[in-house]
Amino acid sequence: MERILIPGTNEVSKEIADSISRELLLKACKPIHKVFPDGESYIRIPCNIKNKEAIVVQSFIQPQDKSFFEAILIGDALREGGISSSILVVPYMAYARQDKVFLEGEPISIRVVMKTLRMLYERLFVVEIHKEESLKYFGEGAVNISPYTHMARQLGLESSNIAILSPDIGALNRAKSLSQFLKCSYDYLVKKRDRITGDIVMEPKELDVNNKDIVVVDDIISTGGTIATASSILRKHGARHIYVLVAHAIMLGEAIGKLRKSGVDEIYATNTLPKKDGIKYIDIGPLIANYLSAYG
Amino acid sequence: MERILIPGTNEVSKEIADSISRELLLKACKPIHKVFPDGESYIRIPCNIKNKEAIVVQSFIQPQDKSFFEAILIGDALREGGISSSILVVPYMAYARQDKVFLEGEPISIRVVMKTLRMLYERLFVVEIHKEESLKYFGEGAVNISPYTHMARQLGLESSNIAILSPDIGALNRAKSLSQFLKCSYDYLVKKRDRITGDIVMEPKELDVNNKDIVVVDDIISTGGTIATASSILRKHGARHIYVLVAHAIMLGEAIGKLRKSGVDEIYATNTLPKKDGIKYIDIGPLIANYLSAYG
Repeated sequence: MERILIPGTNEVSKEIADSISRELLLKACKPIHKVFPDGESYIRIPCNIKNKEAIVVQSFIQPQDKSFFEAILIGDALREGGISSSILVVPYMAYARQDKVFLEGEPISIRVVMKTLRMLYERLFVVEIHKEESLKYFGEGAVNISPYTHMARQLGLESSNIAILSPDIGALNRAKSLSQFLKCSYDYLVKKRDRITGDIVMEPKELDVNNKDIVVVDDIISTGGTIATASSILRKHGARHIYVLVAHAIMLGEAIGKLRKSGVDEIYATNTLPKKDGIKYIDIGPLIANYLSAYG
Repeated sequence: MERILIPGTNEVSKEIADSISRELLLKACKPIHKVFPDGESYIRIPCNIKNKEAIVVQSFIQPQDKSFFEAILIGDALREGGISSSILVVPYMAYARQDKVFLEGEPISIRVVMKTLRMLYERLFVVEIHKEESLKYFGEGAVNISPYTHMARQLGLESSNIAILSPDIGALNRAKSLSQFLKCSYDYLVKKRDRITGDIVMEPKELDVNNKDIVVVDDIISTGGTIATASSILRKHGARHIYVLVAHAIMLGEAIGKLRKSGVDEIYATNTLPKKDGIKYIDIGPLIANYLSAYG
């Protein structure tokens, strides 16, 4: 079936769509997009899409609700235009952290996102969705793309003395699979009470970081607080370099400065969110293209 | 079944919910609502809702996509909390004007809104949805609330010399049913070319407006351009007073000033949208309460 690429409505999505288009030699059809003076979004797909398979790339960046809504508008326009099947690529999935009821009375926000998308798209590719279990709300045809080995490969990460750290035990699998790829040790951070000062500190469970290059792996960094705290301690314990590898760098307010000050040498992120100074970005497009080929 | 009222996340919705609560003597459960620093919305329903019927009031005011999304978050939280059935009241329905494909490649935006709401709500009440046919996308259980006779009654509109005007033939039924209530004549505006100047002007199809009080009825006013043009001409033709009765007063930019300058004496709107100076508002809450009682 002929495939056609539809770049989404924001710059992030357009850049990634460009990259996918180059990798897969796919023709792109740019939607006509505007926001009316009253705030409503308008979308039009100005191409013949009948009986084709569309790949829509839309990152759910801020304003998340608008990015999401425009994705479903595009999905509706595609169905209306006689598309044969629609694939949605979401480089950054919003609302993924509200994936369960933490306090009684809460919604499972990612569930309503997934169920709504499922009405309009047959398949969904998401880059690092915080908790892979959330894909079940979409049902069959949803795929999570883990970016860390792609990032490590692009960076040419290797060192005889490298170790991978997860900020918590819950995300240990991320660190583990990256360490398997790099053939190095891994560990996670635990909260401990300093015996002398009584302060709560973050330390590796067992790993001796002295003279090692430490790569902290995380899916999303918002305020950077946890990693900054951990980083100062890793430095004290003699870590040689500290690198942060993050899929989605939200980096609110002073997050980047705080991380740098705490001793982080470099922050690497994928380009799923708008770019900020002080971060080195790795294009996620080629990795998404690989997945799209494999699942073709 | 015990009913519980859930006011929505914006001031407009809270005011209307208050009014419904007073009319129906319903207990309200105010959701906990915040927007995280990254822009995502958070909702929690802090009441026991198990086996009850919820009435959620959420007007889809700007930012429309967020208002809409928060309505589905509330819907999900209610289902999660074991609600027996959920009714959504939408005083202002966004995206109602994209109710068909005007140009090839467009979505039917109101369709995706309706279908998404239907996943989470059993019934839907909307104040003046532009085209009543759009309710079919929700399916059974959707009701349109026409506000004009309620408005006329609240205003005590009566005059021996009153006439109702629709801005176009498409919306003639609005004018017709209000004229039946007021026992007066009605007509619609047509575009005509002035025989002397060659200008396009808006004139009543047949009605002689001389010395009459004219009530122009419309569902939504955005820029006010059409009605301002019509109003100047009605004045020239000797209209005594010109009143505008509008369900949803968006009134972008200088719309209100433009209408006043064109000869409109007073603009009456319902409180489905944020309030602006120069408009007299009529509370829609009691009318919605009537509908909720009738469909109880």
